[in-house]
Amino acid sequence: MEPINLSDYERAAQEKLPPEIYDYYAGGANDEMTVQENRSAYSRIRLQYRVLRDVSRRSLATAVLDHPLSLPILIAPTAFHCLAHPEGELATARAAARAGTIMIASMAATTAVEEVAQASAAIPGAPRPWLQLYILPDRGFTTEMVRRAEAAGCGALVLTVDSPVFGQRERDIRHRFHELPNGLSLANFTAAGGARPPQLEFKADLTWQDVSWLRATTNLPILLKGIVHPADACLALAHGADGVIVSNHGGRQLDTAVATIEVLPEIVDAVAGRLPILVDGGVRRGTDVLKALALGAAAVAIGRPVLWGLAVAGEAGVSSVLELLRRELDLAMALCGCASIEEINRELLRL
Amino acid sequence: MEPINLSDYERAAQEKLPPEIYDYYAGGANDEMTVQENRSAYSRIRLQYRVLRDVSRRSLATAVLDHPLSLPILIAPTAFHCLAHPEGELATARAAARAGTIMIASMAATTAVEEVAQASAAIPGAPRPWLQLYILPDRGFTTEMVRRAEAAGCGALVLTVDSPVFGQRERDIRHRFHELPNGLSLANFTAAGGARPPQLEFKADLTWQDVSWLRATTNLPILLKGIVHPADACLALAHGADGVIVSNHGGRQLDTAVATIEVLPEIVDAVAGRLPILVDGGVRRGTDVLKALALGAAAVAIGRPVLWGLAVAGEAGVSSVLELLRRELDLAMALCGCASIEEINRELLRL
Amino acid sequence: MEPINLSDYERAAQEKLPPEIYDYYAGGANDEMTVQENRSAYSRIRLQYRVLRDVSRRSLATAVLDHPLSLPILIAPTAFHCLAHPEGELATARAAARAGTIMIASMAATTAVEEVAQASAAIPGAPRPWLQLYILPDRGFTTEMVRRAEAAGCGALVLTVDSPVFGQRERDIRHRFHELPNGLSLANFTAAGGARPPQLEFKADLTWQDVSWLRATTNLPILLKGIVHPADACLALAHGADGVIVSNHGGRQLDTAVATIEVLPEIVDAVAGRLPILVDGGVRRGTDVLKALALGAAAVAIGRPVLWGLAVAGEAGVSSVLELLRRELDLAMALCGCASIEEINRELLRL
Amino acid sequence: MEPINLSDYERAAQEKLPPEIYDYYAGGANDEMTVQENRSAYSRIRLQYRVLRDVSRRSLATAVLDHPLSLPILIAPTAFHCLAHPEGELATARAAARAGTIMIASMAATTAVEEVAQASAAIPGAPRPWLQLYILPDRGFTTEMVRRAEAAGCGALVLTVDSPVFGQRERDIRHRFHELPNGLSLANFTAAGGARPPQLEFKADLTWQDVSWLRATTNLPILLKGIVHPADACLALAHGADGVIVSNHGGRQLDTAVATIEVLPEIVDAVAGRLPILVDGGVRRGTDVLKALALGAAAVAIGRPVLWGLAVAGEAGVSSVLELLRRELDLAMALCGCASIEEINRELLRL
Repeated sequence: MEPINLSDYERAAQEKLPPEIYDYYAGGANDEMTVQENRSAYSRIRLQYRVLRDVSRRSLATAVLDHPLSLPILIAPTAFHCLAHPEGELATARAAARAGTIMIASMAATTAVEEVAQASAAIPGAPRPWLQLYILPDRGFTTEMVRRAEAAGCGALVLTVDSPVFGQRERDIRHRFHELPNGLSLANFTAAGGARPPQLEFKADLTWQDVSWLRATTNLPILLKGIVHPADACLALAHGADGVIVSNHGGRQLDTAVATIEVLPEIVDAVAGRLPILVDGGVRRGTDVLKALALGAAAVAIGRPVLWGLAVAGEAGVSSVLELLRRELDLAMALCGCASIEEINRELLRL
Repeated sequence: MEPINLSDYERAAQEKLPPEIYDYYAGGANDEMTVQENRSAYSRIRLQYRVLRDVSRRSLATAVLDHPLSLPILIAPTAFHCLAHPEGELATARAAARAGTIMIASMAATTAVEEVAQASAAIPGAPRPWLQLYILPDRGFTTEMVRRAEAAGCGALVLTVDSPVFGQRERDIRHRFHELPNGLSLANFTAAGGARPPQLEFKADLTWQDVSWLRATTNLPILLKGIVHPADACLALAHGADGVIVSNHGGRQLDTAVATIEVLPEIVDAVAGRLPILVDGGVRRGTDVLKALALGAAAVAIGRPVLWGLAVAGEAGVSSVLELLRRELDLAMALCGCASIEEINRELLRL
Repeated sequence: MEPINLSDYERAAQEKLPPEIYDYYAGGANDEMTVQENRSAYSRIRLQYRVLRDVSRRSLATAVLDHPLSLPILIAPTAFHCLAHPEGELATARAAARAGTIMIASMAATTAVEEVAQASAAIPGAPRPWLQLYILPDRGFTTEMVRRAEAAGCGALVLTVDSPVFGQRERDIRHRFHELPNGLSLANFTAAGGARPPQLEFKADLTWQDVSWLRATTNLPILLKGIVHPADACLALAHGADGVIVSNHGGRQLDTAVATIEVLPEIVDAVAGRLPILVDGGVRRGTDVLKALALGAAAVAIGRPVLWGLAVAGEAGVSSVLELLRRELDLAMALCGCASIEEINRELLRL
Repeated sequence: MEPINLSDYERAAQEKLPPEIYDYYAGGANDEMTVQENRSAYSRIRLQYRVLRDVSRRSLATAVLDHPLSLPILIAPTAFHCLAHPEGELATARAAARAGTIMIASMAATTAVEEVAQASAAIPGAPRPWLQLYILPDRGFTTEMVRRAEAAGCGALVLTVDSPVFGQRERDIRHRFHELPNGLSLANFTAAGGARPPQLEFKADLTWQDVSWLRATTNLPILLKGIVHPADACLALAHGADGVIVSNHGGRQLDTAVATIEVLPEIVDAVAGRLPILVDGGVRRGTDVLKALALGAAAVAIGRPVLWGLAVAGEAGVSSVLELLRRELDLAMALCGCASIEEINRELLRL
């Protein structure tokens, strides 16, 4: 039967994908407590809805960093879309573009950023993709990636800051899943060519000075992804970031890390409107999106559900995931008495 | 074996009804968290009973809006009783009447309000039914329904305010359950006749002005059903409502909405006695009724259990459900040291 | 294998007893939430033990109402011991006497109080049993029972105050368990003889005036059993009671009533040492006894475990249950740094 | 498959060991609630990590009582290592030594302390083992053990203070597990020789005066193990102890005792830096170690996991357990933004 919600998509993808690939996407660090907690923290928040407000003309449109979006849901960066479907990141990019939202392309994509951007640009009126970036030990290649993103027309850079080292993902260890199958490659890296191709390595000595360096390197807006502490959000502001994505890497880095929705309010309070705050991790229902917005997020990003849609039906599957969530958010807004994103606020919540 | 409590009735009904009909009644929105929470919120409230009070002459009699009732338990409006039993709303109406309580007939009934009222009136001394109403986009038909309710002798109108749009009920989607079987119809609508029969459509632009309009249209008392926010209860008062039913539509509209018993106290406090407050959602035991009254409800309403009784044994089943609950409330009152409804108060509760 | 704790005794008894008898003893009112909560409330209390105190000479001896006891654990009144074992209350009485503690004989016993008292008295140095009493509509017979208790040498009367009516015990209803099997009788009632034998009926108009009446009728100490509200404990004091047993009738009367250990502290505080407070419900481990004493109870009483011991091995089984619990309490005291009952206090608890 | 975390080791050990030996190690007192709670209390603590700190040169090195350690994880004293593996304590000692940490040898070892110390000393640069001690009723033998520990070069004495009596371990009772199999002995006791060999007996009259006696007997540092109350930690300081190990004996003595990590903060606060505080019980993940350090522990100790490693692969298994935990702590530090043990503090925690 046709999937009717995001959980259906996960089940269908699990049936379709080889176990080691499903587990690579689904799994998290160690005991996966943060993976679970990201979800259950949303469930604990209760909606105290309002009634008898005119919600006949609803709009989910919003903007993040002046990029207009048809809905406050972005596509979080995730690696290796070609593992889920032959069309990989191209399918995702097209679905995002058609839905009127931003795909944050992963530096660890199986498709080069230029192709992703081109696929997006082919859809009239589509928002430009953003590029997720690690600052690598190889700073030259990092700079090259920034230039390529600029040239490809990316709208922003998303610097991942929660990965000085690689998290211990036990499903992958058990599957001995540590390299891409034949025919797939880290396209952004192989595209660089050269005698000694650049490697995806984490940089354990990454500091705020690297943020300043990146800030000086480009005029693109920079968002820092992976922040869960209000003090770090304030430092992001001080170092010239243009936005923050509250994220614990989907529970894939540090197990027993706080749930993102749980720390969102204090980060929003600390930043006090000086930066847009996005949040990812555990968003599976329209009501989750509404709760994040009510707590002050400018938008949310979804990661794994996009991969489930992609695995099940390629571009159409990603579109369907986005449209299911759009419809659920629309419904939740109507039932809470909100005709627009601006009307969603903390008074609707019982924490 | 004869059902001895309301859970037994649910199990028996589940065995008897086709799955899509059982699920239509039992199900709720999305993950059905609010359906569950409505129940479990009652269980978390503990009774700190009193002893050595004369409870030999107990009375469960009360009045809501000056309508005397033999027990503080009304029948909440639910759709399509003929799906549960061939005698449908007529059986329910007779059972309510014989029990000395009010049936709130649904606008989406499979029996016209005139017949429901007639069935009630045939029982000497029975309270008059109330009519639940949606204000439809077709205001003419809405007015017609008000007039018909007045003419049929209904005691009050219950305006549902939590349904600007229709909730996402996944059990129904999976069953593809979206229309009434052959021979059944929305009798209040078909009775209207005419070339282009009126449709049951939700009105997403319903506002407090519509409440004012309804208030001006009729002299019948008007209760607003579907309120969970104290601010909305105050607005109900300001717009001339005669009562409020704290309800989340049995968890069928907005999933993860607050449990009704959880927000009852703050609504009671906000309204401060200026309006009677009723509550529905999750009432399955006499102790639940007592808890709701202790928190300030004038009465409770039960929805699904009535349908289980109806499915199992028609009118006799509904009567049995009401009598089981009456007996349980009577017992709970005796064991708490309360001889009358007035003696039930918050001091009996440990929240 | 030999039972090594009270749960083992319950399992062994369940295997041995006919289901309707096991369920009569094990069951509680309605959904049995209070039965469970009585237990789990103990488990939630954590012990923050002390070390390096001399616990080499430990004494569990205590006194309640100047009756010396070898351990702070009484036998709570429970009905129908002959259902569990042919020797019934006599076996229980002997085991209690040999253990140096008080059996509170039930008015609803299958053995007359005179025989119970005689069985006790046959053990040199044994504490005298107490008699649990309902004040019946038949006041003459009630007076007669008081006189018989006095004559039999009972040490106190325990007036049950939580039973104006009979709780709804669904296991019994399903088993249609409502009368004693052939050969068994309510011996205290049949012993009364007479043309029209007295009946065990609950008195729904029982009030504090009946307590005053009982107070005036006898010089025996009177404890009120079934109190969970501090206000009622204060009224007990005001009406001349000599003690209070915090009890919810083992969860058999009002379901979702508060757990006894949860309300014990506030009752202890309200009474402020002017009356001894006992507690029953959910005591299954020596650490439970220690927790109750730490919260201010003078002693605890155990009901169902005694019946499990009785069912498994008659007098020897009851003795074993008492000795297991004595040993566990002794161990818990040693491990908490308490050599005597007086040294147990709230500082050992983390609530 | 190769174990990849400590839970894997437990499962593998359970498959390998006879049930009565696995249960002897795994079990705890009574219902084993404290065993569970020791674990789950860690899981409830959430990490609110920091980012963009240079963690490229991380050090796990620390010192306890001026003994340098390569990681803040000691081996807690546990009895009878030869039950787990023929090489017993010698294998454990070698693994600890090679890992650069301290083994706290148990007085109830199956290998004499002299041999343990010798095995350690054979590894160049290894920290000296410590000896866990009970003060026995036989004070002469106790003194002898102290002298032997001194002579063997032990670095400290760990006096167990939570065992005035022996806890009730129901798994052992059910297995009738109460003596060592043929060929194994309490080597520290048998080594003493003599006509009437000394016995391992608990001393129920152990008091703070015995601590003073031990303090006067030796110049070795003395740590008290088994404290969970801040008042006792302060008494430890007053009686000349050099350190405290917050421990509830792995949940093997008093069931429903508080979880050690739960009381650590208040003990740290009470002692206010005047003594190093260690903690054991429930440490299974690198994040657990980090949490304990963040709450003020100088180091943690692990007991059962060492036995699982030993059972699975002798010395190599113990090494593997230590290295897995080292790697996990290293990873957790990196992901929390801590390059050294000193940088770990309470601000990383959300309790």
